[in-house]
Amino acid sequence: MRSIAFVLVATASIAGIAAHKAHEPKQTNGQPPAIFVTKIPTGYRDFRFISVAHEAGGLNSLGAVLGNDVAIKAYRTKTLPFPDGTIIAALHYTHSPNAENNQIFGQAQSFTPGSPTNIQFMIKDSHKYAATGGWGFGHFGAHGEPGAEAFMKTCFPCHAREKARDLVFTQYAP
Amino acid sequence: MRSIAFVLVATASIAGIAAHKAHEPKQTNGQPPAIFVTKIPTGYRDFRFISVAHEAGGLNSLGAVLGNDVAIKAYRTKTLPFPDGTIIAALHYTHSPNAENNQIFGQAQSFTPGSPTNIQFMIKDSHKYAATGGWGFGHFGAHGEPGAEAFMKTCFPCHAREKARDLVFTQYAP
Repeated sequence: MRSIAFVLVATASIAGIAAHKAHEPKQTNGQPPAIFVTKIPTGYRDFRFISVAHEAGGLNSLGAVLGNDVAIKAYRTKTLPFPDGTIIAALHYTHSPNAENNQIFGQAQSFTPGSPTNIQFMIKDSHKYAATGGWGFGHFGAHGEPGAEAFMKTCFPCHAREKARDLVFTQYAP
Repeated sequence: MRSIAFVLVATASIAGIAAHKAHEPKQTNGQPPAIFVTKIPTGYRDFRFISVAHEAGGLNSLGAVLGNDVAIKAYRTKTLPFPDGTIIAALHYTHSPNAENNQIFGQAQSFTPGSPTNIQFMIKDSHKYAATGGWGFGHFGAHGEPGAEAFMKTCFPCHAREKARDLVFTQYAP
């Protein structure tokens, strides 16, 4: 009886695994598909300061890069690769003339955040995000809308060019 | 004997007070002299993010404004005036082209902190800094050197023009 039961359980298990695999996303080149960050990490606005950036040209963007405790500790101890659990947030705003400041300064020279444009994230989980160098990439528009898949697929190939700093372009501002 | 002792003590006290006053800084217009922040507040680099700014023109500066817990809470609850204990830090860096980013983007558009230029502080203590609107102004160069007195005297008259927001120009970036 026991041997029959075992065969039945084994068969059911195999069937179950096969059924599960049938619902998994298609794999290409034997690699798992890319997974992106689909949920805004809690508390990101309280993360601490890493650096700032001004992107001119078509972006016309002013940004701040913040990191959670794991990120900040890794930056300050120059730990590479970044440990699992690292979360880096890039808060982007329009690079807008500040009329009040310009009046105070006496000339047009001051630019501050006009309105938020998007928030982007990099979350380190070397197992979950193995297909994209251990990093989960996320993009959320001004109203929290996630980035389109075609756009999200462009994150990793670009970041992968930064090999020396574990795919992270932003450096720590002292 | 007691009355003589009293007169002697009283005379000594008056002499002591007069001597003390002779060493106090000269008062002008009956107002106490301006006092500036002369010591960099501990832990400022761990303060949380308020906003960023790009000052073009002669300053060519990229900056981040950070605040201690009292500051952040006041900003988020729109509390005015800022409470005593508020500390706001403005970290300034050169607005420098980022060669690596420009190569990735394919055009010259990216500016990040080159090197630190100065850190400026506003510390709220309505009693200690009564002469300057309740705020102590501080400026420290790249190597921690405090700003010259003539320069420090220009902080308050300028900030005093921002009456609606308790002398603070920087607004909170969401």
